[in-house]
Amino acid sequence: MFPITGDKSLLKFTGKPLILHQIDGAVKAGLKRFVIIANPENITELKPIVAGIPGIAADFVIQQKPSGMADALLSASSLLAEEPFILVNSNDIFEASAYTQLLSEYHRNSNYSSYITAYPVPNYFPGGYLVLNKDNEISHIVEKPPKGEEPSHLINIVIHLHSQPQKLLQYLADTKSAADDVYERALDQMIQDGLKMKAIIYNGAWQAIKYPWHILDAVDYFLSRLPGRISSTARISDKAVIDGNTVIEDNVRVLEGAVIRGPCYIGRNSIIGNGVLLRNSIIGDDCVVGYGTEVKHSYIGDRCWFHSNYIGDSVIEGDCSFGAGTVLANFRLDEANISMKVGSDELDTDHDKLGAMVGRGCRTGINASIMPGIRVGPNSFVGPHVCLTNDLEANKMALAEPRYRVLSNETKLVESKRKELLRKLAK
Amino acid sequence: MFPITGDKSLLKFTGKPLILHQIDGAVKAGLKRFVIIANPENITELKPIVAGIPGIAADFVIQQKPSGMADALLSASSLLAEEPFILVNSNDIFEASAYTQLLSEYHRNSNYSSYITAYPVPNYFPGGYLVLNKDNEISHIVEKPPKGEEPSHLINIVIHLHSQPQKLLQYLADTKSAADDVYERALDQMIQDGLKMKAIIYNGAWQAIKYPWHILDAVDYFLSRLPGRISSTARISDKAVIDGNTVIEDNVRVLEGAVIRGPCYIGRNSIIGNGVLLRNSIIGDDCVVGYGTEVKHSYIGDRCWFHSNYIGDSVIEGDCSFGAGTVLANFRLDEANISMKVGSDELDTDHDKLGAMVGRGCRTGINASIMPGIRVGPNSFVGPHVCLTNDLEANKMALAEPRYRVLSNETKLVESKRKELLRKLAK
Amino acid sequence: MFPITGDKSLLKFTGKPLILHQIDGAVKAGLKRFVIIANPENITELKPIVAGIPGIAADFVIQQKPSGMADALLSASSLLAEEPFILVNSNDIFEASAYTQLLSEYHRNSNYSSYITAYPVPNYFPGGYLVLNKDNEISHIVEKPPKGEEPSHLINIVIHLHSQPQKLLQYLADTKSAADDVYERALDQMIQDGLKMKAIIYNGAWQAIKYPWHILDAVDYFLSRLPGRISSTARISDKAVIDGNTVIEDNVRVLEGAVIRGPCYIGRNSIIGNGVLLRNSIIGDDCVVGYGTEVKHSYIGDRCWFHSNYIGDSVIEGDCSFGAGTVLANFRLDEANISMKVGSDELDTDHDKLGAMVGRGCRTGINASIMPGIRVGPNSFVGPHVCLTNDLEANKMALAEPRYRVLSNETKLVESKRKELLRKLAK
Repeated sequence: MFPITGDKSLLKFTGKPLILHQIDGAVKAGLKRFVIIANPENITELKPIVAGIPGIAADFVIQQKPSGMADALLSASSLLAEEPFILVNSNDIFEASAYTQLLSEYHRNSNYSSYITAYPVPNYFPGGYLVLNKDNEISHIVEKPPKGEEPSHLINIVIHLHSQPQKLLQYLADTKSAADDVYERALDQMIQDGLKMKAIIYNGAWQAIKYPWHILDAVDYFLSRLPGRISSTARISDKAVIDGNTVIEDNVRVLEGAVIRGPCYIGRNSIIGNGVLLRNSIIGDDCVVGYGTEVKHSYIGDRCWFHSNYIGDSVIEGDCSFGAGTVLANFRLDEANISMKVGSDELDTDHDKLGAMVGRGCRTGINASIMPGIRVGPNSFVGPHVCLTNDLEANKMALAEPRYRVLSNETKLVESKRKELLRKLAK
Repeated sequence: MFPITGDKSLLKFTGKPLILHQIDGAVKAGLKRFVIIANPENITELKPIVAGIPGIAADFVIQQKPSGMADALLSASSLLAEEPFILVNSNDIFEASAYTQLLSEYHRNSNYSSYITAYPVPNYFPGGYLVLNKDNEISHIVEKPPKGEEPSHLINIVIHLHSQPQKLLQYLADTKSAADDVYERALDQMIQDGLKMKAIIYNGAWQAIKYPWHILDAVDYFLSRLPGRISSTARISDKAVIDGNTVIEDNVRVLEGAVIRGPCYIGRNSIIGNGVLLRNSIIGDDCVVGYGTEVKHSYIGDRCWFHSNYIGDSVIEGDCSFGAGTVLANFRLDEANISMKVGSDELDTDHDKLGAMVGRGCRTGINASIMPGIRVGPNSFVGPHVCLTNDLEANKMALAEPRYRVLSNETKLVESKRKELLRKLAK
Repeated sequence: MFPITGDKSLLKFTGKPLILHQIDGAVKAGLKRFVIIANPENITELKPIVAGIPGIAADFVIQQKPSGMADALLSASSLLAEEPFILVNSNDIFEASAYTQLLSEYHRNSNYSSYITAYPVPNYFPGGYLVLNKDNEISHIVEKPPKGEEPSHLINIVIHLHSQPQKLLQYLADTKSAADDVYERALDQMIQDGLKMKAIIYNGAWQAIKYPWHILDAVDYFLSRLPGRISSTARISDKAVIDGNTVIEDNVRVLEGAVIRGPCYIGRNSIIGNGVLLRNSIIGDDCVVGYGTEVKHSYIGDRCWFHSNYIGDSVIEGDCSFGAGTVLANFRLDEANISMKVGSDELDTDHDKLGAMVGRGCRTGINASIMPGIRVGPNSFVGPHVCLTNDLEANKMALAEPRYRVLSNETKLVESKRKELLRKLAK
């Protein structure tokens, strides 16, 4: 997820951390009891956020080391053993209907040991593929088959109802694997041992946040479901334009000539400056989107300051500030897809429009240029007049080498020329 | 004409190829039969365009090699021999009155073998100068006299009515010259042999398109004669401004805050974005003039995409795309005239405001800078952050050398400072 | 004051040279007779300006060499000897109440030989500190004590009423000093010799213009006292916004979409272009603030041309012209105070927001970047694409070294891609 350092489940979308969006969906589907498996890093932030939700009961378990889903479930085994539960990954985004589908199937026929959400994919996806028999019972799970050898077009997504938790926990404890696939192996073993699992085909939206650009997909997801709303404390110039579905939070100011082309979300206290163009974006709290800036299809965290910038298809984590004339390129001259280096691999993002991914606390100078798909690590500065062509690690400064000569100026200007120009303009 | 590669007579102005503007003028003057001398390259495009004009008869002749006007006429001799004809150069722009003047003089007195349009020039022009006797009969044609030795202030422009075509064709066939001046020599020989030619003084507009920047003169010509018109299918924001004579074609969209300062022409399906300023320009079909762009006194072909650019006094042939922050400079710091290299000569364009001439299919990156009078050959890319100081040939890429150092960032920011700034702004 | 070369007392603020603002204040306090001590350089400009004021009597004296205040007074001794006078420094800015305070104290009790204005300073200031006894009589003046050793929080500012001019002039003539402090030494000697001086504590605004950035403080001073007024000959688009106290002089044009956030002053004949944002600034006469420019808290002299620029916290003396995309940075990435080299010292300006100081007759090219606090000497050019990181002397050109490679362009574009993009946008 470099350069995004915050916990994914705490990333705010349209004013709410992801975890709250998740719980909201579950509550909508009628669920009331939650077991949150946190880690030592996010527990202190997570707890008060979840604790504030009325009408639910939440228990917290800390998984000491991030060692996979099976380990996570075993950490919480005392809380999970007693009654059927639904397992979800807090970084995945999906609709409440995924829960209701599982629940209604379970209520219809509770004989299956597990109810597994199956997600149809049109193209290859590096996940676990489900092989079904005629009653949508699962006969096999094939983990990450090579491209072209997919046994079906249905992948296993982790929205699983387990009706016999003790049995599941036993299998998890008994399964050994060097890789991070104990949970999947355990499920497959259960199937091989004759336990019945039902696939529930889910046609709604689903999005995993695995790489930083997936945040933009999440932006699309949340914006498309946004109920428009303008706070009564927002001050919006009558010379500004708000077009399409938009949420404008408390104390926001939208100045003259600004155009907000929804769907957009603008967080508390933010200022949308004169002549700004905002399209399909989430803007955090306490931001200043200054004069002459365009923000298009981007995720902007809290406390960002922009000024005569173009920011397109970009993710800016928060506390960032861009100098006038800084442009984030989002389209290659050759119009090819944008790739990013992840580990030693050059990963095709499958996007031909993708800007920069900028970590928390970055600054750019005036007239800086950042190439498509470049990542800027947290607390790094991109100096004025820099054209950033490579990723920048955290806590770095990229400084342009000054490259100019100073000569004597021998020019003689014709004074009347400017007067003539002004006369023409004044007509 | 580098970098403009298209056939000049097919260059579109205000939605119509130049050839159609020419024929329109002739039709207005009552002419109905046309002989078009094409070449193997432009014939396939020319033919259907001309064929679509109702009420005229057009014959096409192909001149196999571009070897001058005399050769062109001789290629068409079978079609031209029978009746008087008017010869014009399809790349010259002039008013219908030039035809009517010739025709009315011919109808008044048809005894002259030729009626030659004479154009008064205030300053030296490298053309053929006419020496007249008292009845405006031509006594001599002096081809390209040296500056200061002009025998008159009248130049010969090729709007010629020949009343005795067979005689003319004979002279053309008999005249030999190593240079491209057979037609002019033949005329002069006819005069020396006692054939009478009448000069018709024409005071209307006339513009030859010889060098690419002449396209801007043609823009002025056509825009100044534009009858304003807004298509009923155009969608124009009530927060946009249309000021002065402007043609807006079908399906154009003009977004909020855009200002169109006529005369302007905007071709079909084009989008004029938020806050755009358009002045005295022709915009082709299917263009996107994006947010924060100014286009001033320029020729923009079809399918161009701009985004936060300044484009002034420039010619952009078509299918071009400019990155955010690309600026075409159009005025030198020393305010001198802009010159262009044509062959080995540095030619003074006589313009102190002149931008870039950009061929078909070019791209520029973000924050690219192009110097005044620079030419960019077709299918060439000017990379991000490049300051282009020399012409670029066709099919090239100019790429900036990355010039920055990466250091450790030791800055400690004072958190309260930003809060204080926001508090001030929020007032 | 480099790069500002004009005489400080002739610097125009809100349409009037500083000297006129000064005299206005004195006239308001009831003063009618003036002795102006000029120098050989400014006398020809000063004289007609002051001569034009109705209802006052003004005498001019020329001090041949700039050799301090004592010498100035002695140059004018014949005019000053006869009656009490008030001495002020024409480059200091203060309110009329400073005069009235002095005068009313003098009328109450005319026994003091001098009445000295005392200005309370919250922090250290490198000036002369007043030590008072209980009746606000001055017991001592301590010139520039080291920081931390100030004997009081009151500094001596040169608004002094001298009731016994002959005695003062005698002391001035008798005092010798190698440094530029004869006047201050003479005053102190007078006190030591038993002449009584009264300190008058002044709590109004006071601003010396010593360094070029002090001009911005003067901008604040004059703008905050501006009575709003729009000339009947100004043409202001009804699509422009004028918000807050603003003076708009004769023949000014404000185009569509411009926003003027007062207090602002716009001089005669200036054009404020489309979409321009102007905040807390003084714009001179005959300026063109072109499309897409923001001017914030700046001093702009006469005949300046801007075009798609950002100009913040800057002083531009006059006759300057900036290319599209030129940005004057006004805030460091590390948010530290901006310092300037004065002589061999690096002087902390005490401002964290400070742009450039640009002398008369400068030009910048397109996409030029100028760092915070940089000074550009008069008649110097900053070339296109230059990132100016050091001060530029007068009459220089800074030219970017072209740094790009030209390669063959092997890109094959997919034609349908652009069509698809246009189709999406057209929705």
